[in-house]
Amino acid sequence: LHEEDTPRVEELVGELHFADIADLLGWAGSSERQQLVDVIRPDFDPELLTELDDELREEVIAQLGTEVVAEAISELDSDDVVEVIEDLEEADQQELLGALSEIERARVQEALSYPEYTAGRIMQRELVAIPDYWSVGQTIDFLRSAKNLPEDFYDIIVVDPRYRPVGMMPLSRAIRTNRPVLVRDVMETDDMRTVLVTEEQENVAHLFRQRDLISTPVVDDNGRLVGVITVDDVVDVIDEEYEEDMMRMAGVGEEDDLSSAVLDTTRSRFTWLLVNLGTAIAASMVIGLFEHTIQSLVALAVLMPIVASMGGNAGTQTLTVAVRAIATRELTSTNAWRVVRKEVAVCTLNGLAFAVLSGAVSWFWFDDWRLGGVIGVAMIINLIVAGAAGAIIPLALERAGVDPAVSSSVFLTTITDVVGFFAFLGLAAAFLL
Amino acid sequence: LHEEDTPRVEELVGELHFADIADLLGWAGSSERQQLVDVIRPDFDPELLTELDDELREEVIAQLGTEVVAEAISELDSDDVVEVIEDLEEADQQELLGALSEIERARVQEALSYPEYTAGRIMQRELVAIPDYWSVGQTIDFLRSAKNLPEDFYDIIVVDPRYRPVGMMPLSRAIRTNRPVLVRDVMETDDMRTVLVTEEQENVAHLFRQRDLISTPVVDDNGRLVGVITVDDVVDVIDEEYEEDMMRMAGVGEEDDLSSAVLDTTRSRFTWLLVNLGTAIAASMVIGLFEHTIQSLVALAVLMPIVASMGGNAGTQTLTVAVRAIATRELTSTNAWRVVRKEVAVCTLNGLAFAVLSGAVSWFWFDDWRLGGVIGVAMIINLIVAGAAGAIIPLALERAGVDPAVSSSVFLTTITDVVGFFAFLGLAAAFLL
Repeated sequence: LHEEDTPRVEELVGELHFADIADLLGWAGSSERQQLVDVIRPDFDPELLTELDDELREEVIAQLGTEVVAEAISELDSDDVVEVIEDLEEADQQELLGALSEIERARVQEALSYPEYTAGRIMQRELVAIPDYWSVGQTIDFLRSAKNLPEDFYDIIVVDPRYRPVGMMPLSRAIRTNRPVLVRDVMETDDMRTVLVTEEQENVAHLFRQRDLISTPVVDDNGRLVGVITVDDVVDVIDEEYEEDMMRMAGVGEEDDLSSAVLDTTRSRFTWLLVNLGTAIAASMVIGLFEHTIQSLVALAVLMPIVASMGGNAGTQTLTVAVRAIATRELTSTNAWRVVRKEVAVCTLNGLAFAVLSGAVSWFWFDDWRLGGVIGVAMIINLIVAGAAGAIIPLALERAGVDPAVSSSVFLTTITDVVGFFAFLGLAAAFLL
Repeated sequence: LHEEDTPRVEELVGELHFADIADLLGWAGSSERQQLVDVIRPDFDPELLTELDDELREEVIAQLGTEVVAEAISELDSDDVVEVIEDLEEADQQELLGALSEIERARVQEALSYPEYTAGRIMQRELVAIPDYWSVGQTIDFLRSAKNLPEDFYDIIVVDPRYRPVGMMPLSRAIRTNRPVLVRDVMETDDMRTVLVTEEQENVAHLFRQRDLISTPVVDDNGRLVGVITVDDVVDVIDEEYEEDMMRMAGVGEEDDLSSAVLDTTRSRFTWLLVNLGTAIAASMVIGLFEHTIQSLVALAVLMPIVASMGGNAGTQTLTVAVRAIATRELTSTNAWRVVRKEVAVCTLNGLAFAVLSGAVSWFWFDDWRLGGVIGVAMIINLIVAGAAGAIIPLALERAGVDPAVSSSVFLTTITDVVGFFAFLGLAAAFLL
């Protein structure tokens, strides 16, 4: 690429799968990226767009020009079109929508009318639905002759006359059943689950995971079939949800990825750091209460970060387990109390172990057994509080309707810092001076 | 349940899907769990076992007795049997294996001979393979009459006479094609990917995600077909890998879940806390170098945690983005240098902002503008170092072949604590006294 050997690049890129080209675009610097886009323009596979991050996608669409893109996306399934255009600016959206056929445009606009992160946004409208009085043979003949079917599908949805799903027939069953058999006699009914079009995508992902589904019908408020969600879209949702949790726990915005601009990234991280500055100042105020104590025994200033830091880490361990368990629904109000008790027990045991260790270190370092005793007791207190807080904070946030991944860790470190400094310096003031 | 109304419980539980029963078992306390297991024993669905955590599964198997379980698992696909027995103790494993049919036993033992976390462990041996000279009609007749097929399948694998995969036929294509057409004329060849049986499951998951696959053939060293991996197993792998990353970043073992025993959990978390104690002591030693400085100006002890904590948080933001990007392969050696530069730029900008803020707070608090200046400069230094370290540490660990999720954050906080204390106290010693 660096040697500007365009024909050679064209040849190499031409052989690649669109997903590999998407990876290449992500790794490339912006000037290399422009070259690459020029190379792929003549022979552009629209599915490439579904594989790009939001910001990259905008850049590539801008460079390709809406005309090329508009023509290309008319080949995509409706869920992919929605994915490509939902984050674009209003004007670009309108231009691309204008290039679609009327039916396709209506479908995409309807999808965009559902709130973000709901089933309506990730479902596709292209689906295979048949009445339950058909025979398997009729169904196969229909599939062979029908024109407007999705490219790949895995289940046939069986509907009643009011277009409400009454069963599903996995393709493997359809293909193995003899032609005269009626669909209603072999379809799956017990294991079929329908999803409401306004259901949150997180709940849809949970259902797919729990039931090992490949596809599932989506219905509107009246129970009528409006679309189908397939497992490949759910895999994307799972990725998104995890990434969100992980990023939120570290105070990083969801849009914060490698391709976002420096200023946007700085701004999105600023808020979290500001909150953290507040927390740190609160902890410093606690230390400020004991200025005189420190003045008389500087060893306290040397040792105090140990107590706070161990509390923060032990609390984070508990917190991570709790946040994950809430996300996977292993932790609910049913077993909350048992989990809190267990976490406190674990932290108490580790508190005892580290009381001995840190106490011994401090004793030998400053040759003062009483200092060792104080740090040991402070350690036990802080780790017990850390365990309780690490389990209770996310549960309380969840009950208050706040995502525990977002704010748990600020609350936690505030508590472990304040309690850690207060216990250590307070005990020292009482017993050492 | 609490009222011991067994018939009523039986009735309620009898209507539930096995995945819901698995959830119930997870939420229940151990005595309730025993009651529940007794209720489900007569009518036991072996798929339930695949949905349980390792420790719960062992408990339930022990209570059900190997005889009941052995009979039940003979109905499962081979990948599910492997999942159920791979973590059991040797003796239980042998007993359960003994209850399987000879063919089934051989399959499971072969799967267990592959290393954990490879394709060989998650693939199933039950698959549909046909020669490429068949017609679609022949294939459908074969599917209708064959007995030993997997319960659900999504793609038919086309093999050559040496049993090497040469193409795939999605079921939706098979069912839509007219009977006389030859399989070799409609099968998918370009988009087919095979997976080596020893491939790591993480790479398999990446392939599925990148290509939106539903199933893919697994081959041995000679390129011969040995199994198939389906997307539902990959979803489990994705869950596992994420959970692992998240847990490792917080220093929590993978087996650390809600149902593990208090002592096991305590032990598994102890190591990480011990490492952290070492880190904290290192940071304290840096403070110890400046005992006299602190003695003369106690305000330093009050303010110093702010510098260290802001560095740790800014570094963790960068670190989280980098670890995620490495896991999803968006960050590779190709764009490493560009990402490091960007992260340093972001942290420098935030460093400037927080230098002003923390400087102003300190100035007003202690009524000393020079103290504000020192904390501001220390803040800028520590945040720049944090940004660089947050990006470089995971990249370096990855290159050294270590999972960056495990150890990155220890290295990072050690660096930000040491640099933070050293910069702040060192500048204070030089300019304030």
